[in-house]
Amino acid sequence: MRKVAVVGAGKTPFGAFADKDLRSLAMTAGTKALENARTGPDAIEAFYLGNFAGPQFTSQNHLAPWISTALGMKGIPSTRFEAACASSGSAFFHAFQAVSAGIYDVVMVAGVEKMTSQPTARVTEILAGAGDSQTEVLVGSTFPSLFAMIARRHMHDFGTKREHLSAVAVKNHENGALNPDAQMRKVITLEQAMNARPIAEPLNLYDCSLISDGAAAVVLCAADRAREFSDKPVKVLGVAQASDFVALDLKEDITTFPAVRAAAQGAYRMAGVAAADIEFAELHDCFTIAEIVAMEDLGFVERGRGGFFSFEGGTRRGGEKPVNASGGLKSKGHPVGATGVAQICDIVQQLRCEAGERQLKRHSLGLAQNLGGSGATCVVTILGRD
Amino acid sequence: MRKVAVVGAGKTPFGAFADKDLRSLAMTAGTKALENARTGPDAIEAFYLGNFAGPQFTSQNHLAPWISTALGMKGIPSTRFEAACASSGSAFFHAFQAVSAGIYDVVMVAGVEKMTSQPTARVTEILAGAGDSQTEVLVGSTFPSLFAMIARRHMHDFGTKREHLSAVAVKNHENGALNPDAQMRKVITLEQAMNARPIAEPLNLYDCSLISDGAAAVVLCAADRAREFSDKPVKVLGVAQASDFVALDLKEDITTFPAVRAAAQGAYRMAGVAAADIEFAELHDCFTIAEIVAMEDLGFVERGRGGFFSFEGGTRRGGEKPVNASGGLKSKGHPVGATGVAQICDIVQQLRCEAGERQLKRHSLGLAQNLGGSGATCVVTILGRD
Repeated sequence: MRKVAVVGAGKTPFGAFADKDLRSLAMTAGTKALENARTGPDAIEAFYLGNFAGPQFTSQNHLAPWISTALGMKGIPSTRFEAACASSGSAFFHAFQAVSAGIYDVVMVAGVEKMTSQPTARVTEILAGAGDSQTEVLVGSTFPSLFAMIARRHMHDFGTKREHLSAVAVKNHENGALNPDAQMRKVITLEQAMNARPIAEPLNLYDCSLISDGAAAVVLCAADRAREFSDKPVKVLGVAQASDFVALDLKEDITTFPAVRAAAQGAYRMAGVAAADIEFAELHDCFTIAEIVAMEDLGFVERGRGGFFSFEGGTRRGGEKPVNASGGLKSKGHPVGATGVAQICDIVQQLRCEAGERQLKRHSLGLAQNLGGSGATCVVTILGRD
Repeated sequence: MRKVAVVGAGKTPFGAFADKDLRSLAMTAGTKALENARTGPDAIEAFYLGNFAGPQFTSQNHLAPWISTALGMKGIPSTRFEAACASSGSAFFHAFQAVSAGIYDVVMVAGVEKMTSQPTARVTEILAGAGDSQTEVLVGSTFPSLFAMIARRHMHDFGTKREHLSAVAVKNHENGALNPDAQMRKVITLEQAMNARPIAEPLNLYDCSLISDGAAAVVLCAADRAREFSDKPVKVLGVAQASDFVALDLKEDITTFPAVRAAAQGAYRMAGVAAADIEFAELHDCFTIAEIVAMEDLGFVERGRGGFFSFEGGTRRGGEKPVNASGGLKSKGHPVGATGVAQICDIVQQLRCEAGERQLKRHSLGLAQNLGGSGATCVVTILGRD
């Protein structure tokens, strides 16, 4: 298999944009990625789109050609990938495989979601479609309640505390406040985080990620052609996708996600690195507990230590293992179908030393972890400086 | 790139099944395909699911792991592909690429749609999501009306007649009547077809395909391992996917689909064959006019001759170029996300000489054409006897 590089990256700001529809968001990100790769739509040989629920949020389906033709791409394979909140991570995984295999030299991967045009209750209902309609949604479960159960069990089994969860929120808000593209640029205190109104005990408002509009795109190419497109290509060292049961009650243990462990092992193996080698990461903090569990499943810390490590500052920008220097889904925003590629854009920005005030000291090997549902899909991507 | 073979195929009957949900349909087809390949879920290295609008039809999203785990597959990449009515054709295209590239040896591709749980008006609305929400759906267009415009223009430009359209319906019903898995096993006369109630002039009831529940699945593997799984492997000789504008008004000419022409040329080139070499085909007759246009875009007949050729019997089972010996979407049924893989199953059945009363005399080289929307996506697959 050939080496693959990211040679262009572009994102919209994340937020609530009443004047922008799904396609205009995707076009902004796609155009930025093309410009960043100093190329145009004619160079793109295939278009990979991650989107979770555009048809329900906006009534538009068949999204891939709807967007790619608007970007000026003609005739090429143009496909939408859906894997819940890991939709664009999955699109990236499949695009990587195709370029690595030599099927294409240059492709675009984009992710988009337009969520704020629906009322919050409807958004929650649409998102619940990523859970099990029969055993979870039918009995009233929504994602906050599913992750609340995970948090409660993690507290029971490992002594994780409410303040550990809140510490994740405080840290991600601290980072997001420095990110000009973040949806909620607001520093919060531990007290504020702990005393916010409850959503699903033990999770409160600050434990939950945001409802967002946004898009992100990257141009991938065969590494031996990377310098045609960029002076700062980024190497894709490892990518893996794995799956597990959708319904939480079918999992043997709800405080660990086998799909995350499998995807991590696959990506580490491909990259020839270990968890300890990863210098920084963008993790899927749809809820604060999800960041803690991800830390453990990725092997960044021992099982059960994620909460303590976060509370002690290990994941802050100056800590041992900086996590979500972008602000994460919590503060940056979480347009679900865009999140996977957005994480990759954030890693690329750090590797290229273009993260401004959020720039990390050690920034040569980063990891993105994109989760779908309560652990049914995971994509892990490892990127390194050229 | 390696050679790839279909070593297992399985379908549910198509119809309206009030007692079967989306997952049970997919599991039936998947289990049949595994049995047909004399293997089990542990052999499958990746799961490719085609589904157009499950979340809207059934409220369940994140469908790929929901189904693959129920089939007993664990940990593997499991992804949903959406490309309107070409969703499972697109899943097949991507699965073929991965096996051909040597990424996996053995994968499953499935397609499923559960449509009849919604009232017809809502089904029409959901299907309209494959058109352009802004320029088409907002002004009241539905797919029957879009294809009606195509038919009207084809009549104007080439002298195609109402009885040409009806001849397609008569032929497909004649074939479907012999297919035990078809939804509507009913022979109709030309008079019946021509005098049915209007849907969108010039299309009437018999010009439109059906609203269906159903699923189909195949097991694909590296050709050098095919005999482990089947005594009758089928060679995948060529596959290509192409795209075009979603909105009909952006096309230069609505009586021909560039995406179909591009996908056909790609598949012919890969297979090293010409249109004239294809012995039989399953074409995407979502409307009778679509079969006529496909005949022309695939190069089976000259531009403008599709209607005449059909009326003269050229596409009947005993004709020069048999089309839709299965009954097609018109009579067999059209559970949209399942259709692409179902077409491939029908071709496999002919190539293996297992099509019973519908068995064609010449059955060593077949083609499947799967269309999304009014020509925005097309996947063409060419299969041959081993």
